[in-house]
Amino acid sequence: MLKIQALEKLIQELSKLPSIGPKTAQRLAYHILKSPVSYSESLTHALTELKQKVQFCTECFNYTDKEVCFYCTDIYRATDIICIVEEPVDITPIESSQAFKGRYHVLHGAISPLDGVRPQDLKIDELLKRIERLKDTANPIKEIIFAVDSDLEGDTTVLYMSRQLQPYGIKLSRIAQGIPIGSDIDYIDDKTISKALIYRVEV
Amino acid sequence: MLKIQALEKLIQELSKLPSIGPKTAQRLAYHILKSPVSYSESLTHALTELKQKVQFCTECFNYTDKEVCFYCTDIYRATDIICIVEEPVDITPIESSQAFKGRYHVLHGAISPLDGVRPQDLKIDELLKRIERLKDTANPIKEIIFAVDSDLEGDTTVLYMSRQLQPYGIKLSRIAQGIPIGSDIDYIDDKTISKALIYRVEV
Repeated sequence: MLKIQALEKLIQELSKLPSIGPKTAQRLAYHILKSPVSYSESLTHALTELKQKVQFCTECFNYTDKEVCFYCTDIYRATDIICIVEEPVDITPIESSQAFKGRYHVLHGAISPLDGVRPQDLKIDELLKRIERLKDTANPIKEIIFAVDSDLEGDTTVLYMSRQLQPYGIKLSRIAQGIPIGSDIDYIDDKTISKALIYRVEV
Repeated sequence: MLKIQALEKLIQELSKLPSIGPKTAQRLAYHILKSPVSYSESLTHALTELKQKVQFCTECFNYTDKEVCFYCTDIYRATDIICIVEEPVDITPIESSQAFKGRYHVLHGAISPLDGVRPQDLKIDELLKRIERLKDTANPIKEIIFAVDSDLEGDTTVLYMSRQLQPYGIKLSRIAQGIPIGSDIDYIDDKTISKALIYRVEV
């Protein structure tokens, strides 16, 4: 359509990114074309560096540019409480809330038979090994909080993992499901209202 | 915030793109991190190729990967009619409409004293030279259509250029300003209505 192969190729690659449609991809490509060559170079450099330097933390499987990530080495964080998340990106909102000061463990997905994601595809075994490794030290894991998505896959993952974790005698919990702060009751869907009623708290 | 320099650097570079805020940039960066390394490589390759291969058409200043662009070499297009656009990206909607089958000339901007864009910063001299060059050939330029934006800068550019072009005795026109197809009159702004009334056509 644009008759310029190099331009069409970039538009095609950019269109593969989430939330970037063909129209946005075209606008981005034209913007890059109009920008000084230094911008294109620093973007290329950043992309290359990302894939070369970023790896999984050997402890919690978050992304890191070191052997062990920031959260696993921060001495000001509790070592006996682990928050389980599906993806590394889920750590950002939890950190923003400043309501959790423990360690993390990233599963890299949630159990989903429909999508072919089985328990062995997730970092569940790695969590069990981590618990085992710390069991007889001065800092054994005492509590695990599931901060997984509030959907069928999240529910399945919590159910499966809580059974796996039962023998260790660790306190297990899941972040509360209910109506979001600042919301109007009349805009909330049935299922959320239902959960909020079931898990009502005394005042 | 994310404590991973390589990741933060890419997010920072992506945030410089139009319509990409810091939140979207973060989502894109995490997506690239999760994608196979081949995607990151082909994106990097496409970016490098773009800057290496794409240049200005020596005739009309559209982007091209050859010496002269597709539109300037297409033998099925009229050679005596030129459509003037501000940016190469403006050619796409005109081509989609299939209502124009002539040549193009890209100004690479519009006259804007406020933004410091002067007539000599645009490809106006190049257009005059192009007209001169073709004047005594078998295919002199007979008509020029201004397809510039419908704003103050567009108006200024048309006014300035039409004065410059007067000596050549070429038919000059500007694409119609009026209410868009499929629109409700009661949603149209005053200025558009006013233009549409001034340029009313007989039925």
